[in-house]
Amino acid sequence: MIESRFGDPGVPIGAVFRTRQEVYDAGVHFHTQAGIAGTHPAAQSIVISGGYSDDLDLGDEIFYTGYGGREPNSGLQVADQVLQSWNWALVQNRDLGIPVRVVRGADPSNRYAPPSGYRYDGLYDVIGFSPAEGGDGFRIFHYHLIRRPSQEPGAWVGFPTSENAAPGRIPRVVSRIDRDPALVEAIKELHGYRCQISGTKIDTPSGPYAEAAHIRPLGRPHDGPDALSNLLCLCPNDHIRLDRGVLVITDDLEVASAASSEVLSSLITDEDHWIDPKVVGYHRFVWTELLQR
Amino acid sequence: MIESRFGDPGVPIGAVFRTRQEVYDAGVHFHTQAGIAGTHPAAQSIVISGGYSDDLDLGDEIFYTGYGGREPNSGLQVADQVLQSWNWALVQNRDLGIPVRVVRGADPSNRYAPPSGYRYDGLYDVIGFSPAEGGDGFRIFHYHLIRRPSQEPGAWVGFPTSENAAPGRIPRVVSRIDRDPALVEAIKELHGYRCQISGTKIDTPSGPYAEAAHIRPLGRPHDGPDALSNLLCLCPNDHIRLDRGVLVITDDLEVASAASSEVLSSLITDEDHWIDPKVVGYHRFVWTELLQR
Repeated sequence: MIESRFGDPGVPIGAVFRTRQEVYDAGVHFHTQAGIAGTHPAAQSIVISGGYSDDLDLGDEIFYTGYGGREPNSGLQVADQVLQSWNWALVQNRDLGIPVRVVRGADPSNRYAPPSGYRYDGLYDVIGFSPAEGGDGFRIFHYHLIRRPSQEPGAWVGFPTSENAAPGRIPRVVSRIDRDPALVEAIKELHGYRCQISGTKIDTPSGPYAEAAHIRPLGRPHDGPDALSNLLCLCPNDHIRLDRGVLVITDDLEVASAASSEVLSSLITDEDHWIDPKVVGYHRFVWTELLQR
Repeated sequence: MIESRFGDPGVPIGAVFRTRQEVYDAGVHFHTQAGIAGTHPAAQSIVISGGYSDDLDLGDEIFYTGYGGREPNSGLQVADQVLQSWNWALVQNRDLGIPVRVVRGADPSNRYAPPSGYRYDGLYDVIGFSPAEGGDGFRIFHYHLIRRPSQEPGAWVGFPTSENAAPGRIPRVVSRIDRDPALVEAIKELHGYRCQISGTKIDTPSGPYAEAAHIRPLGRPHDGPDALSNLLCLCPNDHIRLDRGVLVITDDLEVASAASSEVLSSLITDEDHWIDPKVVGYHRFVWTELLQR
């Protein structure tokens, strides 16, 4: 069972602490050094303090790097991250729908960080996880976090900016990954809403259902293209299998097991739908590497 | 292909208009009377003006009723709504990921409405659709809309309230449907992450994947209970089939086609998991009624 120590820590959003020890004593983040706290069944809280060059903080949305593999003094990534302990726990936040508390530490390079000390900024849902190649060439884990809407706004809402100094109005960074809806429609119509892996077609009273799946993910840190050559028309089950590294696609467009490389079937293709070998190669690299460690 | 007339209408968020004609002339909502505008391939915009008793406006989140079936003078629902035209279009917004523009009209009973005239409040995603029984006993369609986060905040953010008059701080209505994560974990573990309809189990490098599906949906207007007796452990494909009215469950816990009532298989059950006949009955009522019209 899940303990009640998840969720609201009992301090107000925006509460500021001078030290990590104070954050600990207030019951917000139960570790005085690590960036992630809590492992069972999921992570309880994270502290963002600007240590990882692969992090990206957008206020209501965070791209967060897992822990491990860094040289303590230089902060450089010198080894691959491993999918265990806190890194595994953050995946369970996604799968169990358990939010993490987010604490931001002072960081002059981050406009969403407090000017000094540490600030509790509310609960965020982990909506995405993926292995990726970090800037230093080693394996890192990337988590995509979105702030729960039904909380008091973050301390940064209403800050005047140079672009727009009127109080209460701020042109926020456009952080949402905008998928082109025309491509979503086109890939489904091209394949008649039939899954390119299993051949499944789901007909519902409100029309046929299929999903447009990006082979190389959009957005940080993958930056895959939003193009037909990076899209597949899939049923939800095979979308999960592709996105979570159960299946990979070979350069010959065969569907293979990521774990064993065994070819399971041929991808259902269409002459009007060219698939870029570079994006299936990226997807294979990211997921087969993970399993070999 | 999707025309460019979707999305940002080119007027700033918070822009106020005196009349529906002005909203039309500004290119925001291309109908001077109907609440929904645009049909192909999806709806372009909606105007919320308090006409439907089944609507629920929470600012960043809206439960919106489809059109039709109302007596023009009394506003009472006197017939079933039909899944065509604008009602169908709003389903396509969900499936194609096309946001709708939201305009609010003055309504003294709605704290999120402007004091007078009409206000453009930004883009919302349609994240849910379901038939339901309206308060008057007739079939209505319900849409669940969430405001896109990466826009200027709504005009209501920062409004002082009686509970908290400090500017810039507002205790927003807690609108998110909070599913108990312990139940989500429990239903999956009870069934070993195996789909109760197809028997599918999806093993991934980050653990087995299954979904906890509510038979009678949570939240407006269904208000199903968040309880094991209202949950199934399903694979994503069968979750879609259950939620979108392809499959229903009989009182004998057989899986049947909603369209033909033909029994297709038996639900995979567990003696430690009692399923409430009332919730499968509600689900059957909602979806089989829809198909008979």
